[in-house]
Amino acid sequence: MEPWRSVAIVGVGLIGGSIGRALIERRLAERVVGVGRNKATLERAKELGAITQWSTDLAAGTAESEVVVVCTPVNKIAEQVREIAASAAAGTLITDAGSTKAAIVAAVGKLPPGVRFVGSHPLAGSEKTGVEHSTANLLEGRVVVVTPRPATTETDLEDVAMFWQSLGATVMAMSPAEHDRALATTSHVPHVVAAALAKITPAELLPLTAGGWRDTTRIAAGDAALWTEILLQNRDSVLRTLSRYEKTLAAFRTALERRQAARVTKLLAEAKQHRDALGS
Amino acid sequence: MEPWRSVAIVGVGLIGGSIGRALIERRLAERVVGVGRNKATLERAKELGAITQWSTDLAAGTAESEVVVVCTPVNKIAEQVREIAASAAAGTLITDAGSTKAAIVAAVGKLPPGVRFVGSHPLAGSEKTGVEHSTANLLEGRVVVVTPRPATTETDLEDVAMFWQSLGATVMAMSPAEHDRALATTSHVPHVVAAALAKITPAELLPLTAGGWRDTTRIAAGDAALWTEILLQNRDSVLRTLSRYEKTLAAFRTALERRQAARVTKLLAEAKQHRDALGS
Repeated sequence: MEPWRSVAIVGVGLIGGSIGRALIERRLAERVVGVGRNKATLERAKELGAITQWSTDLAAGTAESEVVVVCTPVNKIAEQVREIAASAAAGTLITDAGSTKAAIVAAVGKLPPGVRFVGSHPLAGSEKTGVEHSTANLLEGRVVVVTPRPATTETDLEDVAMFWQSLGATVMAMSPAEHDRALATTSHVPHVVAAALAKITPAELLPLTAGGWRDTTRIAAGDAALWTEILLQNRDSVLRTLSRYEKTLAAFRTALERRQAARVTKLLAEAKQHRDALGS
Repeated sequence: MEPWRSVAIVGVGLIGGSIGRALIERRLAERVVGVGRNKATLERAKELGAITQWSTDLAAGTAESEVVVVCTPVNKIAEQVREIAASAAAGTLITDAGSTKAAIVAAVGKLPPGVRFVGSHPLAGSEKTGVEHSTANLLEGRVVVVTPRPATTETDLEDVAMFWQSLGATVMAMSPAEHDRALATTSHVPHVVAAALAKITPAELLPLTAGGWRDTTRIAAGDAALWTEILLQNRDSVLRTLSRYEKTLAAFRTALERRQAARVTKLLAEAKQHRDALGS
């Protein structure tokens, strides 16, 4: 594969920085342009080898790149994609790394002729944020969901898939709505579940926590503002999944209230079966 | 410190095996007697260096040890402690490693004169089980809660504390009831929370999970029968804590239903603050 002449990354944090490092380390792009607002962060990203140059101007910083990846918070993405598209050359492929898809894809809407946008979601986040935690192998072996819309051609889909595959990821394609329904269960409600557990644990009990509490609450350390936007953008699916979760908790409650040991064991065994199917 | 002449471990699994390995590696006991029902498991524990000898007879296997640690499932412990105590020499110190304390300590009741029992709970479990996963350093830097009862003397408490400290653990003393109230929040309800999340996740969505789901559900892989006993023994505290948890989930639900971004952020920020206080 020919390396890209230029790839632009808007928002050089954990994900954006990791994409940049992988592009540079794998010699997939001649230039990796970091675009952001904070000059010190961008300069630090360059020192770390996550980008080769940077710009604080969204339109100018992305205009000469064949691929643009928008890695900003979900409530910024659609507007930035539209701004990038307005100055982009024909054939430019724009994608993103947002944790929700339906609201973003809908808000991006129709773009100038020849500019291509396919939404993406790399399932490789962390409770950690910032370019300092980025690594060239963050996407290796991870799944990236790509979400074609009616306007997306086979070629567009192949091109965005090839981009993520070149970084070592496995690509799955589904509609934005299907993505959001699935991620409510696999990511968004788990965040609420973990946060609620951390919230009810007073500081004086922390010395009495062990690995179980630590693992179960880990993602509650994620950025509160970012996660608020994710939960609100995927509100309907999150609320539906939360209802299923609450019903399952209620089943545990009822079984415990009635001292139904066999029923408790059955619930726990079903949960264990699902968990064991994944591996550690 | 003089090494113990003999320490008996009843139930040589993850915790019992780890205690044995630490005793042997740190040269704290001349003999470590493993007691259990399965000869192959006991022989394997000996090969792994977790015990120096073994017996399948509870009374005979423990009668000559100065310290006996009962590491069996919580619904077996009290009866076994009573049986051990009936054949024990005066001065023998019996303790356990059960995840609940009030029901066990109450069921142990009054023991023959001179036989001492102080309940313990090492906060060092894992979703893994079995002597194969035991390690000599499992208890290093971990907290062990010891739960004196009215009959417990200062000397008894010091002796049991010294036992756990000699394995590298930090000891905290509290009443059995206080232990159970605290652990409902820090361990037992987290298990239910994780299990309910694993349960609502269908197998076909597993490819769309990432680190968040993986961490949050990890303890759901624990043994269903063991955890049923733990939840039932600490039923009242678990139900009370589950109510607090359900109310917090409901607060998230209401804020999302009403699209109250500031309220969602406040809830997530409080959770993050609690989680950040612990560290990764």
